Amino acid sequence: MTTASPDRTQQTDTRQRFDMGELAAYHDGPALSDAVATGARVTVTWDDGTQGHFPLLWLRDHCPCAACRHPLTRERLYLPLESISGAPTVSLDDGILRLAWADGHVSHFDPVWLHQRRLEEAGMQQPQALPARRPWASDFRPTRVRHADFLEKQGEREWLEALLRDGLVLLEEGPLADEEVSRLAGRIGPMRATNFGARFDVRSKPNPNNAAYTAIGLALHTDLPNWRQPPDIQLLYCLQNEAEGGESTFADGFAVAEALRDVDPEAFRILAETPIDFRFQDEAHDIAVRAPVIQLDADGNPLEVRFNNWIRDTLRLPLARVEAWYAAYQRFWQMLHDPRHQIEFALEPGQMIAFDNRRVLHGRRAFDPNTGKRHLQGTYLDLDLLESRLRVLAR
Amino acid sequence: MTTASPDRTQQTDTRQRFDMGELAAYHDGPALSDAVATGARVTVTWDDGTQGHFPLLWLRDHCPCAACRHPLTRERLYLPLESISGAPTVSLDDGILRLAWADGHVSHFDPVWLHQRRLEEAGMQQPQALPARRPWASDFRPTRVRHADFLEKQGEREWLEALLRDGLVLLEEGPLADEEVSRLAGRIGPMRATNFGARFDVRSKPNPNNAAYTAIGLALHTDLPNWRQPPDIQLLYCLQNEAEGGESTFADGFAVAEALRDVDPEAFRILAETPIDFRFQDEAHDIAVRAPVIQLDADGNPLEVRFNNWIRDTLRLPLARVEAWYAAYQRFWQMLHDPRHQIEFALEPGQMIAFDNRRVLHGRRAFDPNTGKRHLQGTYLDLDLLESRLRVLAR
Repeated sequence: MTTASPDRTQQTDTRQRFDMGELAAYHDGPALSDAVATGARVTVTWDDGTQGHFPLLWLRDHCPCAACRHPLTRERLYLPLESISGAPTVSLDDGILRLAWADGHVSHFDPVWLHQRRLEEAGMQQPQALPARRPWASDFRPTRVRHADFLEKQGEREWLEALLRDGLVLLEEGPLADEEVSRLAGRIGPMRATNFGARFDVRSKPNPNNAAYTAIGLALHTDLPNWRQPPDIQLLYCLQNEAEGGESTFADGFAVAEALRDVDPEAFRILAETPIDFRFQDEAHDIAVRAPVIQLDADGNPLEVRFNNWIRDTLRLPLARVEAWYAAYQRFWQMLHDPRHQIEFALEPGQMIAFDNRRVLHGRRAFDPNTGKRHLQGTYLDLDLLESRLRVLAR
Repeated sequence: MTTASPDRTQQTDTRQRFDMGELAAYHDGPALSDAVATGARVTVTWDDGTQGHFPLLWLRDHCPCAACRHPLTRERLYLPLESISGAPTVSLDDGILRLAWADGHVSHFDPVWLHQRRLEEAGMQQPQALPARRPWASDFRPTRVRHADFLEKQGEREWLEALLRDGLVLLEEGPLADEEVSRLAGRIGPMRATNFGARFDVRSKPNPNNAAYTAIGLALHTDLPNWRQPPDIQLLYCLQNEAEGGESTFADGFAVAEALRDVDPEAFRILAETPIDFRFQDEAHDIAVRAPVIQLDADGNPLEVRFNNWIRDTLRLPLARVEAWYAAYQRFWQMLHDPRHQIEFALEPGQMIAFDNRRVLHGRRAFDPNTGKRHLQGTYLDLDLLESRLRVLAR
């Protein structure tokens, strides 16, 4: 039923491997030594001694031939709607697993691709590992990447990894060019447009519809928590910062939430379990959502922080829970703004700060618009496309 | 401490009421008849006999004066970080509740605004009621709104309400004008850009990177389930549809998920509790997420359906769960495409279909590009801005 090919040379470049319709790499891994159909599964053995079992329907569903996976779009065309009747004929074809199905269809599988997808390892694998989140330590300072390096793949990758890991990264030595933020964003993906536009200017304006467009100090906050899906990533590019004041402030909302859980578990529980209303109104908009300040994932870990005192709407809680909610909110507020958790620095012209708006809170000191100009240009990006970019750079 | 004003004439226009910094209406409601501070709360009585209790910090936090709420941005400036020392002096001032705080600050509250925010009713209230979702009945046909009516407030409101209620609405008798879809979208909010651009053309193309850009039939699916946040609302505007075939198909994913729960609760449970990988790859992108096919909210109701066979990635499940997952997927697939659940009609030029991409699946029959042209223009919108638009139209 099978023929071993123990002498098969291991190839190290995906382009030389059997095409599974994947653009991500699958170059490193062992060769096949045996494969055999037993009942409704195929048992595969590699020359490093590992073994995997694959149900017939799984194998049929993952057939990479042009009829089953579109050669241009790489999308799956096969519909796994029929049951598989009869065991396939299993063989090794020049080191590639070959299955000849009872209905005449033939499928091939690259041994390394298959090795990386052993179902015995399922659950532990992600399609491609991304940097894990790392809480800010007490001496945290953001990673700095030079603008010129960002324009090279290695620097962009370093910038992306720091942003996904720390939720904050600083670009520096960039040009003082209008719309540079849009050009940098464009390397990653399309700008996420909101009611404030796709690209916004942060400076004091007449008739502001948002506190950011005044000169007042801004306590720590997240942007647009009144949206079902607030923007993931914010870019703020500094073009001018001559005014007195206006230093930027940041805190790691997830780390502070965990610190709150340590010192005041009841306050943490209240903020995590109590949906409140956030709402922004102007002549053209009334954007509102009900959500907790700290949203947890299924494992109880912080998934998102919504914190923006300006657009908290009426607090609609049962009377008996109002005072405890305010006490929890005050406690979280104080911890966020505590110098142990809040970092502060003045953005210099040519610097761009990027941060995860669902994790990291940002703010600024008041500035005096009579002492000089302060002008930032900002936009938002979807986290999906940062992760995508990192995967593409890793190919 | 208080003076009643039982003869106060009830006003019916928000603009004549005391300005609470709200643009949403609060015109209908009773007048104040009494208010008194007792301990850390103020007890308010209206002339319809209702009574409400408000904690002092809640009242201080909701003060609408220009120092506490920015007169232009309407955003909250007051920070509820101090405890309130001493009871305020409570009075009725020409029918308005007046609180003179121990530190000298004075707050006023409109009686109707306050009546609508009685904490005794909290939890039952939303800031503004939106249409509830209604599952499709067996004879469901989408509401139709004429293009000319959509351009008037009443027609736009009808269109928005049908879309939020049914997840699907048909616009008709529109012009055969390039980019009309962008103009209509622009009335609601900015287009949501993805890796396929902000506005896309659906027609058969050379070198497609997506099955939609071929002439093949498309089974029911949701768009971009490989994103953390797939687009909420899709607009598809038909400019040409002369080719044979190409009829549009739709199914209410939430209704079919509930039907699945009825007939095969184990299949429903598997699809709801098993995250799988979705992934799109092309030369510039590798956008992937792990999520279940049916995502439930905290109450166990369907919140989102992710269903797109083309961009299902490798199924990474423990061996013992693979076959049961496929069986559940097959069952859901068959029910979705069952004529009892799937509706079908040909889009005519000048019609635009809009649907909730997280609830309603869409597809199309194959068409023969040699028999005529088929050209749709599409874009995505955020649900937040549809809801916002409906609230603004209701002012």
